[in-house]
Amino acid sequence: MIAFNPIGIIHTPFRELKGMPIQPAGAIGVRGTVEIFEEYQAGLRDLEGFSHIILLYHLHRSNGFKLNIVPFMDVEPRGLFATRAPNRPNPIGLSVIQLDRIEEGILHIQNVDILDGTPLLDIKPYIPDFDAALKVRTGWLEKAGKEVSNRKSDDRFR
Amino acid sequence: MIAFNPIGIIHTPFRELKGMPIQPAGAIGVRGTVEIFEEYQAGLRDLEGFSHIILLYHLHRSNGFKLNIVPFMDVEPRGLFATRAPNRPNPIGLSVIQLDRIEEGILHIQNVDILDGTPLLDIKPYIPDFDAALKVRTGWLEKAGKEVSNRKSDDRFR
Repeated sequence: MIAFNPIGIIHTPFRELKGMPIQPAGAIGVRGTVEIFEEYQAGLRDLEGFSHIILLYHLHRSNGFKLNIVPFMDVEPRGLFATRAPNRPNPIGLSVIQLDRIEEGILHIQNVDILDGTPLLDIKPYIPDFDAALKVRTGWLEKAGKEVSNRKSDDRFR
Repeated sequence: MIAFNPIGIIHTPFRELKGMPIQPAGAIGVRGTVEIFEEYQAGLRDLEGFSHIILLYHLHRSNGFKLNIVPFMDVEPRGLFATRAPNRPNPIGLSVIQLDRIEEGILHIQNVDILDGTPLLDIKPYIPDFDAALKVRTGWLEKAGKEVSNRKSDDRFR
């Protein structure tokens, strides 16, 4: 067993899973904040130079999981690890987010697809040389992916 | 406290931190495997259609952290969260990896920058619409970043 403790809390307009954008691409312009607990704030130095950051967080409303599910963007069941569904064996969420500024331990972020009150586990700078893949195939999503920016969450993973 | 359990183990040629590539960009052509524990293998269905996957793993050799560190790619101290250093409050590693094929619960992967024996926490499909940011600034790395593919790890974060 591996134990983690939150380093902060993510605040967003989304109080309920239902109606949430399912990814940042569907959350253009949605603003939020990340409150970093005081004992970790010294680690934020130099972060503001990065336009984008990777947030890793605990999908705290996840409960249990199924290894085959019908994802939001399809009508057929898919293997869980071939989807971004929130109910996972280790419910860790990942979002690439635009960082607008940092003030007094508060990150101001944009294009947020995260539930209000979500516990933050880690922040990493987004670095295209490391994080952007080229010549990408996206399997079952290739038909479905075009529509993602309009899809919203519903209750299926509550 | 949030508790996670590994869903598999990552196998690579890297037995020691010293001399490891520090990111996939420095590990071109390095092959490895990910062994998924039997009870989770049904969740791998449809994953092979994706050319790239995101691995989240426990940086199990990390011990303790400092909020300001000199990263491999610089000579000045930087805030920890503005770096990808492995010693973090919640030592979760993230790599975007090329997936070659899946055979009997074993993922064959390429461009691997991960230590042998690393516990796997999650697999997500890499989806450019979600995971690739555009118009990116990378702060202190903008001077240093060009050389990353030649840098190797040393003992500083042992």
